[in-house]
Amino acid sequence: MIQGYDPRTGEPAGDPVPETAGAEVDAIAEAAAAACGPWEQAGPAGRAAALEAVAAALDGAAAELVAVADTETALGTARLTGEVARATGQLRHFAAAAADGGYADAVVSQGGDGVPGLHRVNRPIGPVAVFAASNFPFAFSVAGNDTASALAAGCPVVVKAHEGHPRTSVLTARIVAEALAGAGAPAGTFAVVYGVDAGVRLLRHPAIAAAGFTGSSRGGLALAAICAQRPVPIPFFGELGSVNPVVILPGAAAARPGEIAAGYAASLTLGFGQFCTNPGLLFAPASGDRLLPAIAAAVQASAGGPMLTARIHDSFAAAIAELGARPDVSELAEGQPGEGPWSATPEVFQVGLAEFAAGLPGLAQERFGPVGLVITYELVADLLPVLARLGGNLAGVVHADGTSAADMYLARQVTDVLARTVGRVVFNGWPTGVAVTSAQHHGGPWPASTAPAYTSVGAAAIRRWLVPVAYQDFPAQLLPAALSPGG
Amino acid sequence: MIQGYDPRTGEPAGDPVPETAGAEVDAIAEAAAAACGPWEQAGPAGRAAALEAVAAALDGAAAELVAVADTETALGTARLTGEVARATGQLRHFAAAAADGGYADAVVSQGGDGVPGLHRVNRPIGPVAVFAASNFPFAFSVAGNDTASALAAGCPVVVKAHEGHPRTSVLTARIVAEALAGAGAPAGTFAVVYGVDAGVRLLRHPAIAAAGFTGSSRGGLALAAICAQRPVPIPFFGELGSVNPVVILPGAAAARPGEIAAGYAASLTLGFGQFCTNPGLLFAPASGDRLLPAIAAAVQASAGGPMLTARIHDSFAAAIAELGARPDVSELAEGQPGEGPWSATPEVFQVGLAEFAAGLPGLAQERFGPVGLVITYELVADLLPVLARLGGNLAGVVHADGTSAADMYLARQVTDVLARTVGRVVFNGWPTGVAVTSAQHHGGPWPASTAPAYTSVGAAAIRRWLVPVAYQDFPAQLLPAALSPGG
Repeated sequence: MIQGYDPRTGEPAGDPVPETAGAEVDAIAEAAAAACGPWEQAGPAGRAAALEAVAAALDGAAAELVAVADTETALGTARLTGEVARATGQLRHFAAAAADGGYADAVVSQGGDGVPGLHRVNRPIGPVAVFAASNFPFAFSVAGNDTASALAAGCPVVVKAHEGHPRTSVLTARIVAEALAGAGAPAGTFAVVYGVDAGVRLLRHPAIAAAGFTGSSRGGLALAAICAQRPVPIPFFGELGSVNPVVILPGAAAARPGEIAAGYAASLTLGFGQFCTNPGLLFAPASGDRLLPAIAAAVQASAGGPMLTARIHDSFAAAIAELGARPDVSELAEGQPGEGPWSATPEVFQVGLAEFAAGLPGLAQERFGPVGLVITYELVADLLPVLARLGGNLAGVVHADGTSAADMYLARQVTDVLARTVGRVVFNGWPTGVAVTSAQHHGGPWPASTAPAYTSVGAAAIRRWLVPVAYQDFPAQLLPAALSPGG
Repeated sequence: MIQGYDPRTGEPAGDPVPETAGAEVDAIAEAAAAACGPWEQAGPAGRAAALEAVAAALDGAAAELVAVADTETALGTARLTGEVARATGQLRHFAAAAADGGYADAVVSQGGDGVPGLHRVNRPIGPVAVFAASNFPFAFSVAGNDTASALAAGCPVVVKAHEGHPRTSVLTARIVAEALAGAGAPAGTFAVVYGVDAGVRLLRHPAIAAAGFTGSSRGGLALAAICAQRPVPIPFFGELGSVNPVVILPGAAAARPGEIAAGYAASLTLGFGQFCTNPGLLFAPASGDRLLPAIAAAVQASAGGPMLTARIHDSFAAAIAELGARPDVSELAEGQPGEGPWSATPEVFQVGLAEFAAGLPGLAQERFGPVGLVITYELVADLLPVLARLGGNLAGVVHADGTSAADMYLARQVTDVLARTVGRVVFNGWPTGVAVTSAQHHGGPWPASTAPAYTSVGAAAIRRWLVPVAYQDFPAQLLPAALSPGG
């Protein structure tokens, strides 16, 4: 049984949810395989309509969904209401991408002169296993980005629910399944399994053709290894850990210390720091004598709160203790404690650039929660090689004074280094907040993701679930619909 | 030392080539890392010009290249001359793709209304390790598709030469390096290492960001595991084994048995069967009483010849012996023997559909060389589920009588099944011969390749060496050239 807990009290939240038995996992995977043909044949318009129906159904049940999720995550009504809207917005974004059809990447080489003609088009890869995340019970969970993009691509989906919000998952699954059925989606197009064993069995099932995952590096690595070691290996798209370095240039630190400090504290403590885009590392000029006090003040005014699970809380506490015990690191500021047994108090530490560089890679590891490390540097020329040594990250940020030629010169240098190791570079902003638009890239080099060419947010996320097929010298009547003149 | 051999005699061909020492491998990898920035900054036009220069230099040295390669591969002057032209054609194809710039996949989401603006563009992933193939000493070797596509993408390349043609590799490497240097490519843009140990050390070097491979499933699996187990895992693009099923429908078998038999025998024995697109399995209607005798006659008239290496010859001999010893398989025809100790004689075996299905997956495994298995079926309805059980393949073929409604109805059914398990479906043709055009897809589900979304031939092959970066709310002056209005 999978028991959800109320992070505000540490007590059980509602009835437990049964784990999915092995035979049932197998039946679900086989039903997904059987749904491949019909779901592909539903076509872009049919799949778009079904995704729109799912979005509408979730919007209609938003109040109920938020209430259940709040008891299991303590993320609060405002955040969770916004997240349901984000999830349904994503479903509509992928519905539009499916209807547009550009994802098919249809290409024709005419041939002639002894060269054969070729029509190439993307087709759905097959049933997709989706491993839901703890920290987004809607946007990266049962009806999140992976599910929406795979369904849009024409792939049946089997979600492995996250243990942190089982009842939210059951309710979401019921709404999604009913909406899909109502929209005419074939049986087997969508299902959810519960429990770690069920998830592993699912991933090993021969019917599963690809997998998506959002979560820790350790969990992602274990699942990636299972995918690679199957008799038939399958692609695994994992979005893993990230520390998202933020560089404050001297001009920016001098021009707007208060704004930067407030923005940093807000980004660091958003969702109690439980974002993969949390700004874990901030590089500040040692010369900026107004920035660090402003950061300290902003962090001191910030509030802690309950972490999603006991395990996340314990990991956070261990990370804080480890940083606090280091002789090369000092505490810069501590925020206000939250309530309940799993609460995390925001905390920011400080270290010099040379000590930070000497402490790599350990000092740059992800610490999930509202904990930041401020690294003070003297010269950007010294900072650049240290930035280049950081592992891959989902996002990186540079803050510059746009009116300062010196800052903009340095900003180009910092951007050049960041662009080699992060998936998204932000100018004068913060890494949290991932826009759901076509140009988005939410991914990055290892360990930010296991597949650096792919994004898990935005229309391009659909590409993870597609494989090309080329048709050589085919008569028009035998080409698939996406390649037919009237298709 | 790496000693090449003349397959016609089994004797050493020329002087041996020294293996690359570990320290030299490291220096080469570090030089490649240092070349990343300058080679990217050479820009699409600069890289295109350099690739054109390489193509021109290889064309100019074609006679010398062919002469050396013939002593090491025995593929013959005509084939090798054609292959040099193919390789230089590929270099020009990727030069054009680079110059076009579409590979950058630049996408802009304007943002507004609280949503940030995003510019996304593909950038080179970093230094690429290329593992050359035995069976294409030019087109999939030192200056082959992987090298050309990675250089076009803006990635420095380090090739691990194949042991089967060391002197061809040395000569090609010298010509490529000189042409690149003459075109202004930075030092470190291109190098070749020799020896298995050097290849493994290269793959483990932290500077290497991705790898390409063409060869056996066993070799590819071993290298894929090394990539996955690095402290920083990297993408591995392996093009592995394939049996490329060919389905002859009843109408086609009745209408043109002689043409099909001749085409099959030619495809099966092309390059003495040493193609990854070799038609290893042919499904023929049991009713087609003229097709099988025609195939037998065509194969009997075909000539064998020397295999590339002693190991390939031995594997071929073992595969023939294993098939010949099976009680469920009979010999259909044997061709004319070739000369020399490593020669392979074309051979085709025959088995019924039920016996074939019972013998899966073993009977569908790749047998490298001029050996085919003809599977006779009674009904296409019985054939379809067997086709669906085959593993992934680079190509599949359906032969139909285009004037027969019954054949075309069956062709659609066969195509639907093949399109789920092969990268390229051919109508009324043969799997050998891979056109270098934009719509090509030379890949396929496992075990045809380790990355089913990617091709190793055609302009899309460049995508293997690119990763996206998104720029959020960036001022125009800081965007990379590919995203700048004047870029």
